[in-house]
Amino acid sequence: MTNTAETAAQNSVAGYPAATKDGRGGAPATPHADWSLARESAHAPGAPLVSIIGDGQLARMMQHAAVELGLSARVLASTPDASAAQVSADVVLGDYTNREHVEEVSHDAAAVTFDHEHVPNEYLDGLIDAGINVQPQPSALIHAQDKLVMRKKLRELGAPVPPFAQITSADDIAGFFEATDGAVCLKACRGGYDGKGVWFPKTVEEARDLVRDLLAKDVPLMAEKKVQLVRELSAMVARTPGGKIASWPVVESVQEDGICVEAIAPAPDTDKNTLLAAEELSRTIASDLGVTGVLAVELFETVDEAGQPEIIVNELAMRPHNTGHWTQDGCVTSQFEQHLRAVLDRPLGSTTPLTDYTVMANVLGGDEDPEMPMHQRMDKVWARFPQAKIHMYGKDWRPRRKIGHVNMTSAPGQSAAELRREARLAAQFLVSAEWADGWVEATTNDEGEN
Amino acid sequence: MTNTAETAAQNSVAGYPAATKDGRGGAPATPHADWSLARESAHAPGAPLVSIIGDGQLARMMQHAAVELGLSARVLASTPDASAAQVSADVVLGDYTNREHVEEVSHDAAAVTFDHEHVPNEYLDGLIDAGINVQPQPSALIHAQDKLVMRKKLRELGAPVPPFAQITSADDIAGFFEATDGAVCLKACRGGYDGKGVWFPKTVEEARDLVRDLLAKDVPLMAEKKVQLVRELSAMVARTPGGKIASWPVVESVQEDGICVEAIAPAPDTDKNTLLAAEELSRTIASDLGVTGVLAVELFETVDEAGQPEIIVNELAMRPHNTGHWTQDGCVTSQFEQHLRAVLDRPLGSTTPLTDYTVMANVLGGDEDPEMPMHQRMDKVWARFPQAKIHMYGKDWRPRRKIGHVNMTSAPGQSAAELRREARLAAQFLVSAEWADGWVEATTNDEGEN
Repeated sequence: MTNTAETAAQNSVAGYPAATKDGRGGAPATPHADWSLARESAHAPGAPLVSIIGDGQLARMMQHAAVELGLSARVLASTPDASAAQVSADVVLGDYTNREHVEEVSHDAAAVTFDHEHVPNEYLDGLIDAGINVQPQPSALIHAQDKLVMRKKLRELGAPVPPFAQITSADDIAGFFEATDGAVCLKACRGGYDGKGVWFPKTVEEARDLVRDLLAKDVPLMAEKKVQLVRELSAMVARTPGGKIASWPVVESVQEDGICVEAIAPAPDTDKNTLLAAEELSRTIASDLGVTGVLAVELFETVDEAGQPEIIVNELAMRPHNTGHWTQDGCVTSQFEQHLRAVLDRPLGSTTPLTDYTVMANVLGGDEDPEMPMHQRMDKVWARFPQAKIHMYGKDWRPRRKIGHVNMTSAPGQSAAELRREARLAAQFLVSAEWADGWVEATTNDEGEN
Repeated sequence: MTNTAETAAQNSVAGYPAATKDGRGGAPATPHADWSLARESAHAPGAPLVSIIGDGQLARMMQHAAVELGLSARVLASTPDASAAQVSADVVLGDYTNREHVEEVSHDAAAVTFDHEHVPNEYLDGLIDAGINVQPQPSALIHAQDKLVMRKKLRELGAPVPPFAQITSADDIAGFFEATDGAVCLKACRGGYDGKGVWFPKTVEEARDLVRDLLAKDVPLMAEKKVQLVRELSAMVARTPGGKIASWPVVESVQEDGICVEAIAPAPDTDKNTLLAAEELSRTIASDLGVTGVLAVELFETVDEAGQPEIIVNELAMRPHNTGHWTQDGCVTSQFEQHLRAVLDRPLGSTTPLTDYTVMANVLGGDEDPEMPMHQRMDKVWARFPQAKIHMYGKDWRPRRKIGHVNMTSAPGQSAAELRREARLAAQFLVSAEWADGWVEATTNDEGEN
């Protein structure tokens, strides 16, 4: 930002950012953020404005959905080249941990929403007190921010949760370790994601050391019984402030090292009662917690004592979710469009799938970035799989970073297994520039037709 | 642009536009356009840049497709609030009839393409001479610019065209009128669209007067025999510079006053030979004319002397086309994504439809703009048809102006007729705020679920 900041300083008047060329800026009414890339012209006449706090791929794809609906969108981004800022005509540069920046992005918005759950709730309460429409509200968000609060609330609702306990001492974890025969999952109550903030100590000593260490760093902790899971499911709904709910088919998701790598909708070979229970549970949670916008209920599928399938709630996310990306290409209404419609309290769209199955496979940065440029890797994937829908986030490579995803919808009669294989091959190639199945490209005839 | 231009002038140095806040601008290397809304940060690292000349809804939807693919896009727009400019982070403000503006938007582009066919070919030749990749090239574009050139070329290729003649005098049209028994369609060779530049004189005298009048205004003219059409079809393909072609299912389209109001894919109840002939014809035209990107071949379906269905070429468009909007929601690969892939010479995507039928209905400004705001009209449509996919262009209302469209994909077993009825009702409501079938909304239960 050095060059940028310098240029802005050169043009600034009385400490305010310089006017932009379209007449906006220049001693603005609310000069809170460092500077703004906003253009008045970025707003469609008469269209409601949605302010999105967050600059990652979820905000990027929300912005994208807003454009199609003719809505206006503004994003609060930390840098001008952040995934969502890159593609937005109205960007406020700032920090979601700065109250004034949060206020700046929210002015005039028909709704303020998020691509993450980490905006301090006291700022959001302040916005609400000022008459701004924040969705979801802090009273719901707290359950996606604090795992202990969430666990207690879900237990209160009678939702299936694993045995859990707050951990405030090394003795606490020792007791929990014993009570669960060592099947311990230790979690930071706040701030974890993609496998971060989760530990699986193997011995009581390791658990004690870990807890002492984390508590010394002021990390609030809880423990829960590690589940013997068959697989992971995700039940997603959208809910409006007026209480309308629409649910998507339940998804099976696959994680590696705590990061989602694949999702398939609907979850194949799934017991009907499990599907019904998962959908019902997600609707109940959305209603009882007052969630608005998209809610993802991440579930563990396990087996009860009678050998029957059983579901247990893992995590909640109150925003579009990685396990809902399939809806972009495989469903009448995508999660991004639905989220916007929900937070604006507008009628929800159809959640009917367009084909038998849709698979989403994440493109995660590999250990090294292959020499072949990404656009050439995309070409190789498209040449082999013309049905591959590649979504890239405009992000630089970093190991294990989510930089894109591939969606594939099934052809008539295509099996879930075959579709998964193809989507995985495509995503793996985008990561590694190698076909995991050793496939060799046939010599193509450039004058041919496809 | 007054306020804007003023502000820019205030900040300008030595006649150059003022620097933008992100450090771009300020005595740029190529200071051709009036000013630029470009941000360096608007470009994803390592991604090819596509420059789009044009600022309407087609450019807007191309820009949208570019974002999803992680491509960078830049548009040349006439005003900052033009449909495509509104939603683009990199905009050059200028005029496609100004050579320097066309050069400015083209610099560093991996490909330069268009949302219309009206850029002067000599500018494009200049770009090509400077080593810039222009797609489609002027040698192909001429056939979408000049109807007489197109007709002659198609006749040469053996493609089905109506009897036609160049008209350079009142006597010419009188002769043509007689030869066709008065079935005359008079056309301006250049510049017509949406029913403009087309006349149907009813008498020889009227024809003579019309031709004298138009020739006096230097309008180059041609006439062709008016076809007794059964309906209109559209055969669309995309072709890469390397010669690969992918075709979409043939579409039936409905025009009112020369403006497309509806398209359905695939064209229902269509003779197999007609479908094959239409697809084959569009591929031949794309190849033989050297078209790159999307080509729409607008066809008249008529009946030959033996009572068999026959097709005749009406117009060519070398860009995404109104009859291809259905692909956004009803097909694996949309025409906007395919156009970008084609002009960049990248592998083409699958053109398989996702459901049995998809209907697109245009939202055209009515005679008056209803009091009910558009977002409320959208809500009413969504409440009745949760499956309606509404695409708005960020445009102000004007009578007969294309301001948006609605796509609907068929539910399993839903008939083409029923789908058309629903899509039309939705579009008509968006235009008029009235249900054409007199439907009355039931009292809804706000706490209900859908």
